[in-house]
Amino acid sequence: MRRVLYDRKVNFYETDAQGIVHHSNYPRYFEEARGFFLEKINYPYEKIRKELNIDIVLLEIQVTYREPLFFGDRFYVEIILKDIDRFFFTFEYNVLKNKKTISTGKTKHCCLDRDSRRIVSVPNIISNLV
Amino acid sequence: MRRVLYDRKVNFYETDAQGIVHHSNYPRYFEEARGFFLEKINYPYEKIRKELNIDIVLLEIQVTYREPLFFGDRFYVEIILKDIDRFFFTFEYNVLKNKKTISTGKTKHCCLDRDSRRIVSVPNIISNLV
Amino acid sequence: MRRVLYDRKVNFYETDAQGIVHHSNYPRYFEEARGFFLEKINYPYEKIRKELNIDIVLLEIQVTYREPLFFGDRFYVEIILKDIDRFFFTFEYNVLKNKKTISTGKTKHCCLDRDSRRIVSVPNIISNLV
Amino acid sequence: MRRVLYDRKVNFYETDAQGIVHHSNYPRYFEEARGFFLEKINYPYEKIRKELNIDIVLLEIQVTYREPLFFGDRFYVEIILKDIDRFFFTFEYNVLKNKKTISTGKTKHCCLDRDSRRIVSVPNIISNLV
Repeated sequence: MRRVLYDRKVNFYETDAQGIVHHSNYPRYFEEARGFFLEKINYPYEKIRKELNIDIVLLEIQVTYREPLFFGDRFYVEIILKDIDRFFFTFEYNVLKNKKTISTGKTKHCCLDRDSRRIVSVPNIISNLV
Repeated sequence: MRRVLYDRKVNFYETDAQGIVHHSNYPRYFEEARGFFLEKINYPYEKIRKELNIDIVLLEIQVTYREPLFFGDRFYVEIILKDIDRFFFTFEYNVLKNKKTISTGKTKHCCLDRDSRRIVSVPNIISNLV
Repeated sequence: MRRVLYDRKVNFYETDAQGIVHHSNYPRYFEEARGFFLEKINYPYEKIRKELNIDIVLLEIQVTYREPLFFGDRFYVEIILKDIDRFFFTFEYNVLKNKKTISTGKTKHCCLDRDSRRIVSVPNIISNLV
Repeated sequence: MRRVLYDRKVNFYETDAQGIVHHSNYPRYFEEARGFFLEKINYPYEKIRKELNIDIVLLEIQVTYREPLFFGDRFYVEIILKDIDRFFFTFEYNVLKNKKTISTGKTKHCCLDRDSRRIVSVPNIISNLV
């Protein structure tokens, strides 16, 4: 499984004085979606951190905002695991409101050993998904 | 010195859809004011963490909101070190806009050893201030 | 109904360098719990804002932190509507982890007309609950 | 003037359980840098919002993270106004620590009339800078 749909509702504290969700919350929504993705493959991030002793690090993020989210909106983040090579992997995101894509995103990651802080291979639990 | 004035401007991302600063930012402003206070006594928090190997922990917080802050507002946080005993100390805060107190607050703290996570005496650099 | 249990999981972005949930997130958890409470009485806050043209304003907050929350923790916020008079009402909160109260809180509110920004009576949908 | 250097220190509440600044804060640092840029050209954003009745909207953001920021770090955001056409403009960002670029970013913007929410030409105060 490489594609998961994460369901979310806008919190009031995520809005700004333009009356919409502040753009800095989308990286947080994406992180929540990644967490949900890892749960769905039965390897929640807290388990990865403890059992494999690795941190998943974010190297790059891109977000495109087409239409805003408002307080009270229910939306979905479709998260798709894309390219994986030995050290890097990528997720793509579609933010959906009323079945319409209102925002898209992309993040690139690698894994660090939590003690040495050195890069390690992408763990099998992720690389095996492709 | 037990009283310091911390100068700040509202960031746009701190506002909400009511057009004002969201209340959850005041605990952050207070934390910044505490950091500024520790800098003024020449013991910035990062130095305390490293040299004394302690974390300053927050045990209680109270905030009263009388008038709101808006985007672009310049304001001051007056921070005052109050009661100190062996294990606990308290800060009080006045948020000032145009020389008027628009919000007040109070926080109670103790110190933990960063390794054992056990409570330790308030360090001299703080207890000596009273 | 005056008591509701709100279910939540800690997000990674809510943690800080002490390895625990930063204290400024508890006011946000309480706001989420209030939103959930209003949903449960079939009057979600976005409906209150639009239909009654009022903003619910936070006047005071208190939080006491006994034990921390960590990344990945599942917890509950028990929210209880307490005192109500003509203009003010109060919520109390218990943060529960493994059936143990690890944090408590209290917030005081009033309602403002969204146009005039003047205080208005607590709406019946809330005052009738007591 | 199209290039400004914005000076900042990491706040504790911006760190996460990896011990570094959480990536979602960089879009906020960039927003602060844009605010500082607008101040330097004597047109702070709150003045733009009020006098020109426009909101500056963010359409796209990209951030690349090379090395982390830690609690207590002092850093600079170099912000450069790049391409401008009738409706869109772009900023580029370099995050500098100890004179080394540790992160880069890019944001694309347009302007909306605050009442109609329709796109309007980039105001002269910005387009004249190129």
